[in-house]
Amino acid sequence: MRDLDREETYLVDRQGLALELRDLVGSGPVPQEAYPAPFAALAYGEGHFAAKALGLPDWTETGTLFLLEGGYDLGEASAMGLLAESGRVRVVRVGFRPGVDVYLPPSPLSPYRYLRFLLLAMGEEKALKEVDEALLAERRRLTPEVPLEENPAKFLAYTLLERLPLFYSPFFRPLEEAAQSLFARIGKSLSLTPPFSALEFFLTGLEARHEQGDPLAAVLLGGGEAASLAKEILETRVDAIAEVPLPEGSRLAQAMALWYRLAWTAYYLALLYGTDPSDQEVLERLREIT
Amino acid sequence: MRDLDREETYLVDRQGLALELRDLVGSGPVPQEAYPAPFAALAYGEGHFAAKALGLPDWTETGTLFLLEGGYDLGEASAMGLLAESGRVRVVRVGFRPGVDVYLPPSPLSPYRYLRFLLLAMGEEKALKEVDEALLAERRRLTPEVPLEENPAKFLAYTLLERLPLFYSPFFRPLEEAAQSLFARIGKSLSLTPPFSALEFFLTGLEARHEQGDPLAAVLLGGGEAASLAKEILETRVDAIAEVPLPEGSRLAQAMALWYRLAWTAYYLALLYGTDPSDQEVLERLREIT
Repeated sequence: MRDLDREETYLVDRQGLALELRDLVGSGPVPQEAYPAPFAALAYGEGHFAAKALGLPDWTETGTLFLLEGGYDLGEASAMGLLAESGRVRVVRVGFRPGVDVYLPPSPLSPYRYLRFLLLAMGEEKALKEVDEALLAERRRLTPEVPLEENPAKFLAYTLLERLPLFYSPFFRPLEEAAQSLFARIGKSLSLTPPFSALEFFLTGLEARHEQGDPLAAVLLGGGEAASLAKEILETRVDAIAEVPLPEGSRLAQAMALWYRLAWTAYYLALLYGTDPSDQEVLERLREIT
Repeated sequence: MRDLDREETYLVDRQGLALELRDLVGSGPVPQEAYPAPFAALAYGEGHFAAKALGLPDWTETGTLFLLEGGYDLGEASAMGLLAESGRVRVVRVGFRPGVDVYLPPSPLSPYRYLRFLLLAMGEEKALKEVDEALLAERRRLTPEVPLEENPAKFLAYTLLERLPLFYSPFFRPLEEAAQSLFARIGKSLSLTPPFSALEFFLTGLEARHEQGDPLAAVLLGGGEAASLAKEILETRVDAIAEVPLPEGSRLAQAMALWYRLAWTAYYLALLYGTDPSDQEVLERLREIT
C-alpha cells in the first residue's frame, strides 16, 4: 500500500493540485463593481454547490441574477440569461463559458471561488471571513506535511481505500452530491448518495443478497439525531463507518469546511490509487461539445 | 435463474404487492372539502416525490399548506405545521402520522396516492385524468400475465439482475432518487444516482481502478440530448445500458408513468432475487422512533 507520509507518493500529482488546494483561500476573481439587490443565482456545474450553500433563489424579477456558467448546460444558461435581461434584471455571467463577464477557469476547487465571488458581490464580507477562517483552521491539519496520525483527511482516505463510500450529511444534504463530485473528479472514484428518505434506504437497500461487490464505507458528515440513527442502522450493514463532526463556525462555514476536508480526502485517495488527482483531458472535450 | 413467466416465482409475494400495483390507479383518499388557493406542500418520505412532481413551493403565506407526513421528519413536520397555522394559512395534514386530517397508510406505492390527493384538492381533475390514462396504458404491458417478450418491466428486471443500477433521468432529475427508493424498498436492492453534474461524473467517477464489484447497469430514463451524451460516455464504462423512452402524455403523466414502470421493475427484481417485495417489519420500527 502507498504511504501518504512519503514524498514519492506525491509524484503522481503532476499538475500540483496540492498547491491549489493549499492556496485555495482568497483565490479567484473579485467583483469590480457593486450589484443591485435582491440577488438570485442560476448555477451550472462548478457553480451549483455555491448557490445551494447560500440558499439563493434561482430567479428574480429585479436586482441581479448571477449566471454561474461552471459546467455544461446544453444552451439553457444563455436562454435564461436572455430571458432575464429582457426584464428589469441585471445579469452577471460568471464562469468559463465564452463571453462571460467574469472569467473563472475550470477546476474541481472552483465551488469555493464561486462562493467567494457571490459573497463579495452581495457585500457579505463578514460571512466570507468566517468561511475563510474555518478553511484555514482545517488546512492546518490537512496538508501533506502533517503526518497521518494528526491528519484527518489522510486517515479518512485510508478508511475509504478499496471501499465504496456512501455519503450522508443530514445537516446539509447538498454536501452529499458535492462529495460525490469531488470523489469522482479528484479521486477518480465511485461513491454513493442516499435518496431523500435516507434512513429507509439504509434499512432496505443495503441487504441485497447479490452484493458481492466492493465493501461499503459510510461517511456520516456533521452529526445530529439523523446521523446517530443512521449509524445505528448502518453498523450491521456496512464494512466501515467514518464520522466527521461539525467544525466550529457559522452554518455556511461548517458546510464549506466539510467540503474542503472532503476535497483533501479525495486528493489523498487519488494518490493511494496511484492516479493523477487533476482533471483529465476528456473533461475539456465534454466542455467543447456541451 | 428464476422465471418471471412461471407462477411459482410469485410465491415470495406473500402480501400480494402485485395486486396493489395492478389496482393502484384510482386508489387512496379523496379530499372531502374545498381548500383555498394558493397551494404549497411540505413533504416528507412517501409524499416527497408527489410534491416535486407537481413543482409546488414548500411554503405559502396564504391559502393552503399540505403537510405530507409520509415518513420520518424528526419533529420538523409538526413544528412547521404550528408555524404555518399561526399565520393566515390553512394547514392540511395528510399521511400516516398520529393526528393527521387525512389518513394515508404507509406503502411504497403511496407517492401516486399523495399526488392524486393533491391534484383533486387543487381542482386539477384534468391533469389527474392524464396521469391515470398514462398509468393504465403502462399497466396493459406490465402485469405478471404479460409474458417476458412483451413486458418491458420484466425485461428490465432481467437486465438489472446481479448488477448495480445507475439511474439517470435528465428530463426530470427527481425521478432518479424516486427510482433509488423504489429499488431499495421493493427490490431490496442497492442502486446509484449521479450528482448534479452527471455527465462529468460519468466521465471521471466510473473508471476507478479498484472496481472489482458488481457490474454497473445504466438506466437512461426519458431520452433527450443529455441522455444521448450519457449513452456515448457510458457505453465503454458500464456493463449494460437500458434506455426507457418517454411515454405519451403531459410532462407530469410521463414522469408518473416512468415511476410506475420502475415500481413494477423493482417488484420483478425482488422476485428474481427470491425476496418478498413488500415492506419489512423493520420499517415499522423506524416509524415508531422517528
